[in-house]
Amino acid sequence: MLDPASIKALTFDVFGTVVDWRSSIARDLGDYFAKRTPPVERDWGRFADRWRKRYQPAMERVRSGNRGFVKLDVLHMENLREVLDEFEIAGLSDSEIDHVNRVWHRLDPWPDSVPGMTRLRRRYALASLSNGNVSLMIDMAKRAGLPWDAILGAETARAYKPQPEAYFRAAEMLSLAPAQCMMVAAHNSDLHAAAKCGFRTAFIRRPYEYGKLKTYDLAAETGVDLDCENMNDLAAKLGC
Amino acid sequence: MLDPASIKALTFDVFGTVVDWRSSIARDLGDYFAKRTPPVERDWGRFADRWRKRYQPAMERVRSGNRGFVKLDVLHMENLREVLDEFEIAGLSDSEIDHVNRVWHRLDPWPDSVPGMTRLRRRYALASLSNGNVSLMIDMAKRAGLPWDAILGAETARAYKPQPEAYFRAAEMLSLAPAQCMMVAAHNSDLHAAAKCGFRTAFIRRPYEYGKLKTYDLAAETGVDLDCENMNDLAAKLGC
Repeated sequence: MLDPASIKALTFDVFGTVVDWRSSIARDLGDYFAKRTPPVERDWGRFADRWRKRYQPAMERVRSGNRGFVKLDVLHMENLREVLDEFEIAGLSDSEIDHVNRVWHRLDPWPDSVPGMTRLRRRYALASLSNGNVSLMIDMAKRAGLPWDAILGAETARAYKPQPEAYFRAAEMLSLAPAQCMMVAAHNSDLHAAAKCGFRTAFIRRPYEYGKLKTYDLAAETGVDLDCENMNDLAAKLGC
Repeated sequence: MLDPASIKALTFDVFGTVVDWRSSIARDLGDYFAKRTPPVERDWGRFADRWRKRYQPAMERVRSGNRGFVKLDVLHMENLREVLDEFEIAGLSDSEIDHVNRVWHRLDPWPDSVPGMTRLRRRYALASLSNGNVSLMIDMAKRAGLPWDAILGAETARAYKPQPEAYFRAAEMLSLAPAQCMMVAAHNSDLHAAAKCGFRTAFIRRPYEYGKLKTYDLAAETGVDLDCENMNDLAAKLGC
């Protein structure tokens, strides 16, 4: 049984768990490209999907040691240039491409994220534990009002999840034993990796992360401590 | 001339600049030891001074490479045991000594810090760039209401100020050129070290950091960009 008093900090996955990356990207880029002369019309939800599809392979080159650590903004930029080619979008200046790449800094939270996290923050330290880089997380938080106590994750650990170093370094920086930390994520794989490092775990249901109903990650798998509808449900389950 | 629009983030020294460590420690430990049986009476301001005096030599062993990186809580603890001996205070349990050591997590801000920083945060990203460790900064911020956007500093850089790595790593994590960062501190030596790395600099006057009027660091030295009475004055000088 989980004793909420044994938990001192919550560490959060962000893309998909705290923010709705797919519809935010589709809306932001839809607006941006509609205003160009001439307007560029594409399926921006599909554009977001294709961009996101290159995410894990790009990090895997770093995780495997085939490439030194580079921040996610750099991987996003490399992947973006490929997706722009794939969607036959040309003629953007470097600063325009940079603006498009920084759409990941402009993602909107799910409606329950800010109220739920605000409740949780009264009792717990809240830290991001995302593969996103520090400045991405700062920009996103300032725009969306995310109430972080600290920005941790891949860049402060110099290791991408699900590498154990990413979780262990976060716990170490929080001066906590892993068992005093709870990983919060909408992806069972993230929670299993955190649990292997000794973290407690909470699943957040985000069935429409990819626009249409997911075929997996619809509920917490065996071994996950809490299965929550959303952040307010997590706050309730932890007695906040 | 300094153009405030060229600055994107402010990085803050914390002990002495944002918080009044000496009077906070004197008050906290005075209360704590007065309640013991029997009460322990000492000059707690002097106790704080003697503890702080061991601060630079302890970090210097890490900076010089004679010791691997350890977080400031560990250095504070080692120094505390020596100061307790010096003041002939015995009989504390390990958990009581830990509580005393964590007085650095319970420091009060100078009266202008929270209002001034709250103004500054509207326009700039605010990050700690302290030699204090991450969990110390989180605890302090939650208790005092310090409006950080990110906790950076010695532990995220694994280098103690004034080593250049401490400043360069902070700018890198903010995804900024050093010239887009402004170091804010009550100590000219910190600002000179930051300026050597390319940071812009703002001095905050804290003449009573050591209880009585300082004999040095009373005003900004040549080469510092801004000389400010306090955080509200910094906000005004940056047009916030």
